[in-house]
Amino acid sequence: MRFDGRNIEELRPVHIETNYIKHPEGSVLISVGDTKVICTASVDDRVPPFMRGEGKGWITAEYSMLPRATEQRTMRESTKGKVTGRTMEIQRLIGRALRAVVDLEALGEKTIWIDCDVIQADGGTRTASITGAFVAMALALHKLQEAGKITSFPVKSYLAATSVGIIEEFGAVLDLNYHEDSRALVDMNVIMTGAEEFVELQGTGEEATFTRAQLNELLDLAAAGINQLFESQKEALGPIAEKIK
Amino acid sequence: MRFDGRNIEELRPVHIETNYIKHPEGSVLISVGDTKVICTASVDDRVPPFMRGEGKGWITAEYSMLPRATEQRTMRESTKGKVTGRTMEIQRLIGRALRAVVDLEALGEKTIWIDCDVIQADGGTRTASITGAFVAMALALHKLQEAGKITSFPVKSYLAATSVGIIEEFGAVLDLNYHEDSRALVDMNVIMTGAEEFVELQGTGEEATFTRAQLNELLDLAAAGINQLFESQKEALGPIAEKIK
Amino acid sequence: MRFDGRNIEELRPVHIETNYIKHPEGSVLISVGDTKVICTASVDDRVPPFMRGEGKGWITAEYSMLPRATEQRTMRESTKGKVTGRTMEIQRLIGRALRAVVDLEALGEKTIWIDCDVIQADGGTRTASITGAFVAMALALHKLQEAGKITSFPVKSYLAATSVGIIEEFGAVLDLNYHEDSRALVDMNVIMTGAEEFVELQGTGEEATFTRAQLNELLDLAAAGINQLFESQKEALGPIAEKIK
Amino acid sequence: MRFDGRNIEELRPVHIETNYIKHPEGSVLISVGDTKVICTASVDDRVPPFMRGEGKGWITAEYSMLPRATEQRTMRESTKGKVTGRTMEIQRLIGRALRAVVDLEALGEKTIWIDCDVIQADGGTRTASITGAFVAMALALHKLQEAGKITSFPVKSYLAATSVGIIEEFGAVLDLNYHEDSRALVDMNVIMTGAEEFVELQGTGEEATFTRAQLNELLDLAAAGINQLFESQKEALGPIAEKIK
Amino acid sequence: MRFDGRNIEELRPVHIETNYIKHPEGSVLISVGDTKVICTASVDDRVPPFMRGEGKGWITAEYSMLPRATEQRTMRESTKGKVTGRTMEIQRLIGRALRAVVDLEALGEKTIWIDCDVIQADGGTRTASITGAFVAMALALHKLQEAGKITSFPVKSYLAATSVGIIEEFGAVLDLNYHEDSRALVDMNVIMTGAEEFVELQGTGEEATFTRAQLNELLDLAAAGINQLFESQKEALGPIAEKIK
Amino acid sequence: MRFDGRNIEELRPVHIETNYIKHPEGSVLISVGDTKVICTASVDDRVPPFMRGEGKGWITAEYSMLPRATEQRTMRESTKGKVTGRTMEIQRLIGRALRAVVDLEALGEKTIWIDCDVIQADGGTRTASITGAFVAMALALHKLQEAGKITSFPVKSYLAATSVGIIEEFGAVLDLNYHEDSRALVDMNVIMTGAEEFVELQGTGEEATFTRAQLNELLDLAAAGINQLFESQKEALGPIAEKIK
Repeated sequence: MRFDGRNIEELRPVHIETNYIKHPEGSVLISVGDTKVICTASVDDRVPPFMRGEGKGWITAEYSMLPRATEQRTMRESTKGKVTGRTMEIQRLIGRALRAVVDLEALGEKTIWIDCDVIQADGGTRTASITGAFVAMALALHKLQEAGKITSFPVKSYLAATSVGIIEEFGAVLDLNYHEDSRALVDMNVIMTGAEEFVELQGTGEEATFTRAQLNELLDLAAAGINQLFESQKEALGPIAEKIK
Repeated sequence: MRFDGRNIEELRPVHIETNYIKHPEGSVLISVGDTKVICTASVDDRVPPFMRGEGKGWITAEYSMLPRATEQRTMRESTKGKVTGRTMEIQRLIGRALRAVVDLEALGEKTIWIDCDVIQADGGTRTASITGAFVAMALALHKLQEAGKITSFPVKSYLAATSVGIIEEFGAVLDLNYHEDSRALVDMNVIMTGAEEFVELQGTGEEATFTRAQLNELLDLAAAGINQLFESQKEALGPIAEKIK
Repeated sequence: MRFDGRNIEELRPVHIETNYIKHPEGSVLISVGDTKVICTASVDDRVPPFMRGEGKGWITAEYSMLPRATEQRTMRESTKGKVTGRTMEIQRLIGRALRAVVDLEALGEKTIWIDCDVIQADGGTRTASITGAFVAMALALHKLQEAGKITSFPVKSYLAATSVGIIEEFGAVLDLNYHEDSRALVDMNVIMTGAEEFVELQGTGEEATFTRAQLNELLDLAAAGINQLFESQKEALGPIAEKIK
Repeated sequence: MRFDGRNIEELRPVHIETNYIKHPEGSVLISVGDTKVICTASVDDRVPPFMRGEGKGWITAEYSMLPRATEQRTMRESTKGKVTGRTMEIQRLIGRALRAVVDLEALGEKTIWIDCDVIQADGGTRTASITGAFVAMALALHKLQEAGKITSFPVKSYLAATSVGIIEEFGAVLDLNYHEDSRALVDMNVIMTGAEEFVELQGTGEEATFTRAQLNELLDLAAAGINQLFESQKEALGPIAEKIK
Repeated sequence: MRFDGRNIEELRPVHIETNYIKHPEGSVLISVGDTKVICTASVDDRVPPFMRGEGKGWITAEYSMLPRATEQRTMRESTKGKVTGRTMEIQRLIGRALRAVVDLEALGEKTIWIDCDVIQADGGTRTASITGAFVAMALALHKLQEAGKITSFPVKSYLAATSVGIIEEFGAVLDLNYHEDSRALVDMNVIMTGAEEFVELQGTGEEATFTRAQLNELLDLAAAGINQLFESQKEALGPIAEKIK
Repeated sequence: MRFDGRNIEELRPVHIETNYIKHPEGSVLISVGDTKVICTASVDDRVPPFMRGEGKGWITAEYSMLPRATEQRTMRESTKGKVTGRTMEIQRLIGRALRAVVDLEALGEKTIWIDCDVIQADGGTRTASITGAFVAMALALHKLQEAGKITSFPVKSYLAATSVGIIEEFGAVLDLNYHEDSRALVDMNVIMTGAEEFVELQGTGEEATFTRAQLNELLDLAAAGINQLFESQKEALGPIAEKIK
């Protein structure tokens, strides 16, 4: 039994509210336990300069936290005048992951802007962002298809992410909250497709290391958790869910 | 009858949900029609360097919009690397207004950080921010008092804000939504106290002007609207409402 | 009698020296008491990207102070690497005010750049900037018309600005100098046209408030002061003065 | 046989020249094939503010490329005025990895600054940086110990890094050069200790995915390559090599 | 006879108006032909951190041009968000030159901030700035001595600067205006003391070169011109002039 | 005999290794004593916007130091977010000097980017950069000519640079190392062509001055030293050396 009463292989409660914001083509409010993220997907009819004329689309992401999403107030990056390394890492990760499951040729010369804004943080904000952004993106692409702007639905597979880690008292655990994350010896983010293949794997032992056996244990936990997240995504997407393998 | 069916002296529906975010000392989600703002109040036990040793507190505000709060996606200020002039004007305005109704000596050497993050915009984001921030601040100060960190409740009066303006088809109207705001000949933001005194008055005729008579008409509308906003604030504050004159 | 011997409804001495700098199309050195501002108007044959092809002109302003215009040396904004919120507010205000009295269609696709550089500050720098910039702009537009680049004179009305405020010892006073400004309970900037209509009204009670009756008293003072400023502008403009209503 | 004639499990030639620069406490020029990186370790007798008084040391890293380390000239980050997301990711990774094998308590309140400057790039610059930085750091810590500034040698284990990836024509391969890297379907960076444990694992399928079986194949290749890198490090360190397990 | 009717060894008319701005400890408006610079000297009772506790003073300078000091409007450096290389070169030059003629020990732990703001530019703005700044600094130091804050007058010698150059039609000429400067094959700035020694010499042949004989010719012209500038400085300083050798 | 055993008119050992980096069109590693600089020349088929359509080429330079090129670690300019004044001065100087000996019309609409990265610093980094950059540029232009992209070799003359200075113990000396430079009363950088003409002369007396006689002595030393540098350049260039006068 973990500090919050969960089993080691138990996800926190997941809820995905679709169309949370009225202007974007797709939007959700995802909560994973006390972590809450507004994810929006915006369609731009242009691609970045380096891609023009190639007939392919692009997906890019930005990530931010409200100053008081965290226990202590965090200074705004706009006030600092620059984006931190952590934010850059996360937004590059989100964009890369989503691109792995979208047929960019089928999208055509359009950019999907994903914005993940954490309004309340309790660990796992980047994995919740990816899981929520996938749904917001699917909603936006569905709207594009309804409007006749794309002919086929370009999402090749489901995509969700979770964290796993090693904690002194419990060993390998699934879906760390902030309290667990700050004590973890090893922290790993896993992003997988509906075909149970990896899109990204990032495991870090800050002032610690992990063996091949521990790695395998963590990957088993992650795969089971991600399969549950796919169920939440399907439920949120309703009839659109069937368009994706 | 205005485009959205309101009378000229009619506010949009106002809703204030308190304790919307778990970490801050005070927080609300305020909606005024389709404009939605998360307002949080954070307590810092220090004051800015220029005020140290004076025994007085300080209140400062930051304001931002999610990129897709607006109809077209707006570039993040953190990505631009700088805060726009519009944002600076608004955050200076919010801080100044709140300081006018708080006894900073009674607060003591503490800073209240107000964060207003617009998650959905439909006109009047700065006035909704002020109206909501007042409630978040009152909640935080109440918590400070409960914890024995301040002896008296330092809020001297209610404070709320609305916009009024002149539109070609309707003349003077109360509480402009985005569609009205973009067509307004004259746009005025009015901030008042519970004693029906002005804290701030900003009237602008972009490529237009207004007479003394029109000014008086606008001020009458604003005063009536603000009195209704006080009712929403009182309802949201519940028993705390009685601590304020 | 105020600290400097003026009556409450008395402006400081105003002097406007035209063609103070040789390169700009229009320039003045305006002094209002000890406040001295160099205002220049530069003509650019392009408009900002967002306005291209609309056949309309644009007027934009920048404002700055020499580091030692003030009693204590102020750090340069170029050294800080960013423009402060106060500066942004002022330059947006100057541009907006001038645009209200110019027929931008008659100007055609040109930008008038207004630069207001305060070389000595003693309160009221933003209102002196507006009053001086109006004259510099009129000189530049006259030169444009003489050169046959515009067919009609696009200035629709006179424009001038002053400050009024409430001081503990004297109540409502006109044209505050720095000493008065730093003690004022209420501070209001008023910008009016030659037709005695408002272009902009900004009243602020920092840690104070004001009633409707006080507002009216302040507006009466301001209107009288602005009428005197129009006389100084006409004198400075000489024969060009008659081109403006 | 790969494009450059190597077997799939073959590293490029590795050479580590110690004491390459005269001023730093430790320095090397590491070449891994045509990738060349100057790594220096500098000792600072202070720690960052957030760590003061804890009696622990800190290790931090910076990474950069000369503009013409690459086939096309890259703009300098100093000229751009900001560090890119890629650079930030890499420097955070290098620092985190080195901290995992150093006993920061034994180091005491000192900061080791690692600088990795790529003078010629041909793929694998981040892994070469880590492998070289480990040696530069060991040299600097040895010098610290010789000077009596630390009592025990604080390096707990060897540390080296390599990349592995999946290429259409060859499947899983070890130590990708730039040509291979730009064609790879999956790219993975692996950092391991002398005890054959993972410190960090980052696998990415850009527009591709990978199975659990492929992951295992990649990890086997990486472990074998890293064992060879440890030999190069030991040779470079000479007698100091024996101080590390 | 040059384009403006001067002989090759003739300075433009020089005028130095002292106490031009009321707040600074020392200020002048210097005009050299149509080049006009406001130079102020401000006294700060601290020195920069790297000099604290050494008992010596410091002199530092900043330089700027109003946007429309030039024929074409120049973008403000505050708007660009950074100071250009040209500005940095000039402000470093001004500070270095003034420090060469001041006894920094006699000044004690104080900083003299020199601000040179060009309000109208017609060539030679950096040399006019140095010549004017010397006078502003002397005025400020005199005021410091009068107030008993320094015991001896720390200025060791006069200091002035001029430009010389080589022009196709006229050969070597003294004190180039903008028109001459833009056509010059060689451009040299010379700063000398009252003892006719060099403080700084910067000669540049942009897309051209110069011989030792030409150098000597240029230096003769410069020395003669600078001697005349000393006369203008003495006249401006009045009785204070005699305190300097 | 100087501190390092040299005569006053003796250069430090100079070595120029060509083709040091594989990607650039031209590159060298130049060492002048313990000062080591990687100089590369990159060819870009465009010119800056302000030169387009004129049929002329451009040469521009960037300069940087590795953080630990110096005795104390220096913060990176990319981390600071801005380039220092010293760096800007040096890179402007390098570009200007090289342009003085290249026929830009013969080069055609191309830009030569010079990058000088100091990997180890011991005084004279800017003059070593110029001397090395000249060779890197000649190599790149030779390659351009071999490839038939330019018809004539556009280098008009040799170009090299050295420093001279006045030291209390020795008087005028040639080629100051860091220890000498930090004690020098006068410091002068001299850049000359193969025709023994000056391209740039920058002499500075920081808190000191120099006479005309001292200037002549310094220039004699510099000319002799630069003639020796031409020999090192010729040796490095091999057969290409004969293409330059």
